[in-house]
Amino acid sequence: MIEFLEGKDILEFKRNVFSALENDLVFARQPGEDVSVEKQRELTFLRCKQLFKHNFLTADEIMQNPFKATALNDCLGMYDWSVSAKYFLNTQASMFGGTVGNSGSKRHEQFVQDIDQMKAFGCFALTEMSHGSNTRAMRTTAKYDPNTQEFTINSPDFEAAKFWVGNLGKTATHAVVYAQLYTPDGLCHGLHSFIVQVRDPKTLLPMPGVMVGDMGKKLGQNGLDNGFAVFYNVRIPRENLLNKTGDVTPEGHYVTPFKDPNKRFGASLGALSGGRVSITRMGVTNLKLAMTIAVRYSATRRQFGPKDNEEIPVLEYQMQQWRLIPYLAAVLALDHFSKTLFVNFVEFQIGLMMKDKSERQSELGREIHAISCASKPLGSWTAQRGIQECREACGGHGYLAMNRLGDIRNDNDPNCTYEGDNNVLLQQTSNYLLSWMNAKHQDNVTVESPLGSVNFLEDFNSILGSTFTVTREEECMDSSVPLAAYKWLVCFLLRESYQKLNQEKASGKPDFEARNNSQVYYCRSLAITFIEHTVLQRFHDYTHDSDTPASLQPVLKRLSGLYGLWTLSTHMDVLYQGGYLSGKQPAEMIQNSILRLCSQLKDDAVALVDVIAPPDFILNSPIGKADGEIYKNLWTAVLQGSKVLERPSWWKEFCDNKPTLGSLRAKL
Amino acid sequence: MIEFLEGKDILEFKRNVFSALENDLVFARQPGEDVSVEKQRELTFLRCKQLFKHNFLTADEIMQNPFKATALNDCLGMYDWSVSAKYFLNTQASMFGGTVGNSGSKRHEQFVQDIDQMKAFGCFALTEMSHGSNTRAMRTTAKYDPNTQEFTINSPDFEAAKFWVGNLGKTATHAVVYAQLYTPDGLCHGLHSFIVQVRDPKTLLPMPGVMVGDMGKKLGQNGLDNGFAVFYNVRIPRENLLNKTGDVTPEGHYVTPFKDPNKRFGASLGALSGGRVSITRMGVTNLKLAMTIAVRYSATRRQFGPKDNEEIPVLEYQMQQWRLIPYLAAVLALDHFSKTLFVNFVEFQIGLMMKDKSERQSELGREIHAISCASKPLGSWTAQRGIQECREACGGHGYLAMNRLGDIRNDNDPNCTYEGDNNVLLQQTSNYLLSWMNAKHQDNVTVESPLGSVNFLEDFNSILGSTFTVTREEECMDSSVPLAAYKWLVCFLLRESYQKLNQEKASGKPDFEARNNSQVYYCRSLAITFIEHTVLQRFHDYTHDSDTPASLQPVLKRLSGLYGLWTLSTHMDVLYQGGYLSGKQPAEMIQNSILRLCSQLKDDAVALVDVIAPPDFILNSPIGKADGEIYKNLWTAVLQGSKVLERPSWWKEFCDNKPTLGSLRAKL
Repeated sequence: MIEFLEGKDILEFKRNVFSALENDLVFARQPGEDVSVEKQRELTFLRCKQLFKHNFLTADEIMQNPFKATALNDCLGMYDWSVSAKYFLNTQASMFGGTVGNSGSKRHEQFVQDIDQMKAFGCFALTEMSHGSNTRAMRTTAKYDPNTQEFTINSPDFEAAKFWVGNLGKTATHAVVYAQLYTPDGLCHGLHSFIVQVRDPKTLLPMPGVMVGDMGKKLGQNGLDNGFAVFYNVRIPRENLLNKTGDVTPEGHYVTPFKDPNKRFGASLGALSGGRVSITRMGVTNLKLAMTIAVRYSATRRQFGPKDNEEIPVLEYQMQQWRLIPYLAAVLALDHFSKTLFVNFVEFQIGLMMKDKSERQSELGREIHAISCASKPLGSWTAQRGIQECREACGGHGYLAMNRLGDIRNDNDPNCTYEGDNNVLLQQTSNYLLSWMNAKHQDNVTVESPLGSVNFLEDFNSILGSTFTVTREEECMDSSVPLAAYKWLVCFLLRESYQKLNQEKASGKPDFEARNNSQVYYCRSLAITFIEHTVLQRFHDYTHDSDTPASLQPVLKRLSGLYGLWTLSTHMDVLYQGGYLSGKQPAEMIQNSILRLCSQLKDDAVALVDVIAPPDFILNSPIGKADGEIYKNLWTAVLQGSKVLERPSWWKEFCDNKPTLGSLRAKL
Repeated sequence: MIEFLEGKDILEFKRNVFSALENDLVFARQPGEDVSVEKQRELTFLRCKQLFKHNFLTADEIMQNPFKATALNDCLGMYDWSVSAKYFLNTQASMFGGTVGNSGSKRHEQFVQDIDQMKAFGCFALTEMSHGSNTRAMRTTAKYDPNTQEFTINSPDFEAAKFWVGNLGKTATHAVVYAQLYTPDGLCHGLHSFIVQVRDPKTLLPMPGVMVGDMGKKLGQNGLDNGFAVFYNVRIPRENLLNKTGDVTPEGHYVTPFKDPNKRFGASLGALSGGRVSITRMGVTNLKLAMTIAVRYSATRRQFGPKDNEEIPVLEYQMQQWRLIPYLAAVLALDHFSKTLFVNFVEFQIGLMMKDKSERQSELGREIHAISCASKPLGSWTAQRGIQECREACGGHGYLAMNRLGDIRNDNDPNCTYEGDNNVLLQQTSNYLLSWMNAKHQDNVTVESPLGSVNFLEDFNSILGSTFTVTREEECMDSSVPLAAYKWLVCFLLRESYQKLNQEKASGKPDFEARNNSQVYYCRSLAITFIEHTVLQRFHDYTHDSDTPASLQPVLKRLSGLYGLWTLSTHMDVLYQGGYLSGKQPAEMIQNSILRLCSQLKDDAVALVDVIAPPDFILNSPIGKADGEIYKNLWTAVLQGSKVLERPSWWKEFCDNKPTLGSLRAKL
């Protein structure tokens, strides 16, 4: 199975990376060790440096098989997302899809080379303290001075400090800074990116006029040093403008290949769209780790039983199956989806590189934008909820840091926020669908999307006329049933959202308000059901494909059915509300099917997590080890902790019953 | 409002505690500081010690107003749950509802006094490494030897090590150990509790035969040292048996005031039921902290707006209101509920102390058990989800440790697990309701519960015949509407669960299996809707009571309506499935009412969090400060961090491009 899912080439590559990490002392660690933030940053830096030596991937290899870059990110992330983030934040400047490579031109090649050789350490400074989602409102300025042929980068005040910049806290020497570009005539040409040196690579001291620092501890990913920077009229050469989307001549005239400033803005942020594709997968990868731990634990942990002296594994309980196994199905569905989305994205990127100006290329861009703006929320939230369920399903032992569910949760958390807040992003997706509706209503055109994600909407009216007609549980367990229901859901919510929006407008509300008041229960639900439909459609096709080995089909089809029914069951209210379901029987059948599928899959669960699990060294969780010896592994790990059996260093403080305030203060 | 909700006396008491903490240097701290686990344990110990000096509450004061103990726990928990837990774990032995006080007798008074004077530090050792929920299956033994008049406490192997014991990791000198009691005739008399000295209070070194240690880092509450202990035939005097539920004579005969061993077991674990009442409130308290931060932040943070140069506070967005304001309603509903439950519990405790053997007292015990077994899950899960929503609603700044949402989430998390896993506990509640159904069906008796929580079931059949008839949105916004729906829901799910269980049994499944297969979608949902109904009923009555000041009623009624409709909306599928709702209109009306209530409450939101918020010093979150100067406070706090502007200590490692393995290793 694993060979079919991963492919020999990638499997071999991942094994190499995993084993290189395991055999490299720089990557040695103990489960649950208490490492200070400062130390975590140092270790992460050293590990990152070591990765440059290992040089797991060359640019050529990536061009041959771009998915290897994703596989490398998976492997490093499974070890520790801080290491992966620090490494890719730096290398992305020179790698596939990177900012400088994409936004710059020939004159920036030396900088790219320096990064490759770790002479420079890069970062990406867009968000400011008071602005995140609303990127257009950034307030840092870059004013051009034709006398010296320099730009002056300035932060008007501390609220405009660049904030949350990964790598900037301690190590970045150069930043790609987004600022409002002003020409000498006083005109503002909008957000552009500039290379600004922030530290001296020989001393790591800040450059004159740059106030740069560390933001401090975060909920997770503490190996990565997020930082802030305030620029006090810092001068940089004209050539440091990344000039793909617009340039300033030595005399101070603004020139751009784009005619529409809106398009220019979109292109300037283009480098971000790959981030969402990647985050979708990061969520899945985190859920793989958590599921491995929880399923292995549940298969071994025994509690209660039919008789007082006979206890059964907790995974035998229907409740535990229902809590965990749908998330296992979600892992496989989302894993498959994120791979195919990556392939789509690569196709788009190749088009960009080939300067493809066709209508299809631009439609592809819009469609990938719409899909990734919803798949990132779906991936990160599914992981967030799944990891939490795993944490709780492992009881107290899941609360012990060494078993890693806390770190996985904490490291997954920013996936819900960065590269766009999940709830805000979903609006991009519903806007895309509403624009389809507009095109249909007003112009009556047939929209064929390059990836086909909205093609089924052509049958809009007949789909809306359909209802749930399944009468046998066997039939209900196939993913074609939830798939059909999802088609209805998307059409229904699209119509409702469209009507709601028009109603709001008709009642005299301005566009901005009308749109805001159509999100909850309408556009938001629309975007979510649309992406769940897309994921399910692709997983359904995959599991029902004749190329999928017959020996694997039964279990894969069950996973597909379970994923579909389980996510569908969160929309039962809408299905009833709109009349797709009626009466007691359909809901009961769906619920019974979910429970039967869980029960059918529970004996495969351990084998399935073996397929998605990394080696024990990478997983780094005593209760999640492959041998299933949870208590032996836990006991060993507890005793290997720091000063486990020692009395505390402050034991005298304990035994002295009359401490003075002075002695207490001395301890603080 | 605050005076009405809290009462003058409690308000004054809380202000005193808060200000004492703020003015005591031992409690000084910085937002987001990175403190090692070892240091956290030391600080917590010192703070705990300091609390004994402050002596905020005497036993007399507690007897006069037992709620003061809860208020103290609220205050300390708002500061840091580790401090509160360490303090109460120790003092509970001597305080209201404590173990030794409850389970012991005159001969244990000296021990209780020692704890009062901090000569001994106590802990409560029930769970073992391989057993948590299934308490009966504990494997530690206590064998009586009449020759020496001692018990021998023994752990058969490391899987029976006492595990997760709070205070045991570093500081406890004495443990209340639960073990299977064996008399010389070889008979096992089940689980009993024993006082075992585990460390020497003069040196903090372990006692002979006791292997005691620290479990290491947890996801949160790291100031509290959870520990493990293995006993190698440790001998303790006969008198150390806490003998309220059973005793052994010097000659080795077992004597008990209970005739039914099941009752004895129940009484022996009786000390635990207060824990769930208290945890219900801990969840609410955590949600108060998180809501304060998120609402204040959302009222000040501006992002996007109707025009490019005009941005509006994010709380003005319907989406943000919908994400946060229902949780604010939940805080007030659950706050009121947890207070009334505490009053119920005190009544029950007084009955115990008065040795009330009436039928009512025993019914009261069963009812409080059933309610608290569901209110703990409801409180902890509502907090878990609400805190996560707050974290996400504060975007990136919510991910910064200094803003405290991470700590609040991490510290709340064990509430879902300890004193019984939430999902397992819910079975106790559904069992209680099913036994009502059995009594009704088989014996046709009228069951009046002392607290009246199941009295409405008397109208079972007429309730099941009711449907949703509301036609006006104004009407829908009153909590009487969701309350009626909840009555139907509980009756419907009770009937369905009862039928499901009987079906499973009829199909030949043994009792154990039949019960397990009736949890998901049936008994579990039943228990959840039952407790939501109970909470809503009490809040509805409170907000509609003529004693509630007329000036407060409008806002309180809106909160009650919102809480009811919002929690009800998670059960829409069942409402449709069972025919209580039909057609599109009811769901739409409920959704519109929720959104309208959110919108009506958003201007009161900041005032409402001012009512539930502790002082800034206690809240310890720059973006959550009362002055609403989020950016100034954040900027100041960031710059106050450790080594913010300094280059890292390992900067040479950075600048040296050819590190050798030797130099890297030296850094590890």
